[in-house]
Amino acid sequence: MSSRPNLPTARDKLLFTPGPLTTSLSVKQAMLHDAGSWHFEFNAKVKWIREKLLEIAGLSPEAGWETILLQGSGTFGVEAVFATCVPSDGKVAVLANGAYGERMVLMLQRLKIDHVVFRTPENIPNDHQALDQALAADKTVTHVAQVHCETTTGILNPLNETGAVVKRHGRGFIVDAMSSFGAISIDWAAAGMDYLVSSANKCIEGVPGFSFVICRREALLACEGYARSLSLDLLDQFRGLERNGQFRYTPPTHSILAFEQALKELEHEGGVEARAARYRHNHAVLVKGMTALGFRLYLDPRVQSFIITSFHFPDHPRFAFDEFYRRLSDKGFIIYPGKISRANTFRIGSIGRIFPRDIETLLGAVGSALREMEII
Amino acid sequence: MSSRPNLPTARDKLLFTPGPLTTSLSVKQAMLHDAGSWHFEFNAKVKWIREKLLEIAGLSPEAGWETILLQGSGTFGVEAVFATCVPSDGKVAVLANGAYGERMVLMLQRLKIDHVVFRTPENIPNDHQALDQALAADKTVTHVAQVHCETTTGILNPLNETGAVVKRHGRGFIVDAMSSFGAISIDWAAAGMDYLVSSANKCIEGVPGFSFVICRREALLACEGYARSLSLDLLDQFRGLERNGQFRYTPPTHSILAFEQALKELEHEGGVEARAARYRHNHAVLVKGMTALGFRLYLDPRVQSFIITSFHFPDHPRFAFDEFYRRLSDKGFIIYPGKISRANTFRIGSIGRIFPRDIETLLGAVGSALREMEII
Repeated sequence: MSSRPNLPTARDKLLFTPGPLTTSLSVKQAMLHDAGSWHFEFNAKVKWIREKLLEIAGLSPEAGWETILLQGSGTFGVEAVFATCVPSDGKVAVLANGAYGERMVLMLQRLKIDHVVFRTPENIPNDHQALDQALAADKTVTHVAQVHCETTTGILNPLNETGAVVKRHGRGFIVDAMSSFGAISIDWAAAGMDYLVSSANKCIEGVPGFSFVICRREALLACEGYARSLSLDLLDQFRGLERNGQFRYTPPTHSILAFEQALKELEHEGGVEARAARYRHNHAVLVKGMTALGFRLYLDPRVQSFIITSFHFPDHPRFAFDEFYRRLSDKGFIIYPGKISRANTFRIGSIGRIFPRDIETLLGAVGSALREMEII
Repeated sequence: MSSRPNLPTARDKLLFTPGPLTTSLSVKQAMLHDAGSWHFEFNAKVKWIREKLLEIAGLSPEAGWETILLQGSGTFGVEAVFATCVPSDGKVAVLANGAYGERMVLMLQRLKIDHVVFRTPENIPNDHQALDQALAADKTVTHVAQVHCETTTGILNPLNETGAVVKRHGRGFIVDAMSSFGAISIDWAAAGMDYLVSSANKCIEGVPGFSFVICRREALLACEGYARSLSLDLLDQFRGLERNGQFRYTPPTHSILAFEQALKELEHEGGVEARAARYRHNHAVLVKGMTALGFRLYLDPRVQSFIITSFHFPDHPRFAFDEFYRRLSDKGFIIYPGKISRANTFRIGSIGRIFPRDIETLLGAVGSALREMEII
């Protein structure tokens, strides 16, 4: 660590992670202002953001949808849904094939909410047929929870198929769409979600500080009296925002200002479809280049999202991930360690304010690192 | 709301609030960088911040103290202490004389933690003698919770006297020092605190995004298995930071970079004593000027902190707070509405990157507003 860590360097290292991401300079510059968190000017921005998020989702308040912003990381948002929306005698069925599904299980344990887990291996999508049978057999399950894009691997789970099962059985559907919302377009009618959770520092390309929950108003309003926490009480947070436009407790004002700018830049780029196209292009360039360098993908391409990609460690005695990571860092590129329990992998994200040309320069650096390590 | 709200204006409005505050430009500029939340460079900054906070407090890890940073606002930090550190058969005695004490009661209700409340009127400090008798009579109380500076009014509660009572009875002591830490110096030996909670956007003059808890390591480690939430599990958060230097879940990276810079600026200013002197000076100029304009203080000066000051509405038929607030906002000054249940007041904060000359310009604007409203 430099003794003068805040002096500007030529350029920040590029982040090829699932977030926090590389953001645009203009998004960061929006934070060069101090806003009064009770002030009407700030409240108007919060209102605009809440409306804009629904618009991006293709939803509206008139059709019964709401957006709630909540302080903290995405995990706080997911836990807030469980803590607020599951009744004391409720039971949650969790579909898990990675760390974020398992995190839901941990939340339910701490919150002392009854639950059952349907696991598939980390490279296999959630099994909606097994869920179908289980829901038929167990009428006590009130909610089903799924991770849309499980960034543990980058696998895309079957949202619409799962939603159809959940709705057929008349249960509530909670989706962690942390790393997919804003880039993978959603068919809300098909998905049948009651609660979707995402966060500021993912595909909208804001900075971290808060999560947001898009939900059916009717489902939320039915949760009166369930909340197991004050800070994580989503219904109370919603009522606060509706009452006077304010967060109940100090909002991350600068993150909110950055998010407002990020939403404008998403629109300027051409919306969710255009952003998806850029990320998809990033991913295609990455996979082609990494494959050419001899890397193997962990996932079958048919279940691989364009959000983040897991690669096996090279089968070479001189490969050491820590050295590889550090050499890439020295060259200005931050990749992501693996999180898979059963395979040695690392991950490279395709999201954030990065472009195919950035992927090309990363690939050049990966090649250099491998040559320096005498692996190729 | 302007249709081009992000265009820079001549200067941001000055915030005379209890936070989020006006911060220095250099603190905000520290946010012009994207940091990898898993990266060793960022982890080193988090480590430095945790050590620096203890140093500011005059404490050390060797003497058994730790600092834990937690995503979210200060409220999340206070609730995390309750959710993590009170056993299932524990009972908390809350000393309340304002909204933040009452918020503790709400938290305990949601967390289903047994509790008892000792209330004094909003203009009367917490009653440590009543607490003494109550603790003698009720051996089931495991923890006492107090708000050091209750920003509802600006009253300073008796920390050392309360701590002496709590320690004499061998109970745990939890203090919300949100708006006092970093400006009101603390005698830790006298106060006998086990947990102190504050947040990034108060007297350290950072931006909002996280709270921090300074605690006795031994007290925290004894809380294994108590946690009622995953996100708010302070012990797990501590273990994560100790294990690999990382937050368990996405940290507000930009707020952390700003806080690093804010801590350097606190040191540059001369530390807690120098900052206290500036705030005390701000407060003195404010009280003198407001009194000259005919305003009356809500609190007895003997219990009034120099953090934030409550003023009665003028006893004049043409005074309307909304208009007064809006006129001051138009002149570039944001004051704070009142939060007192039994009196019509508003509040003006003395903290943040504001100086006596800023208080003077605010006083000029207050005078102008009163003249425009034909009150003086």
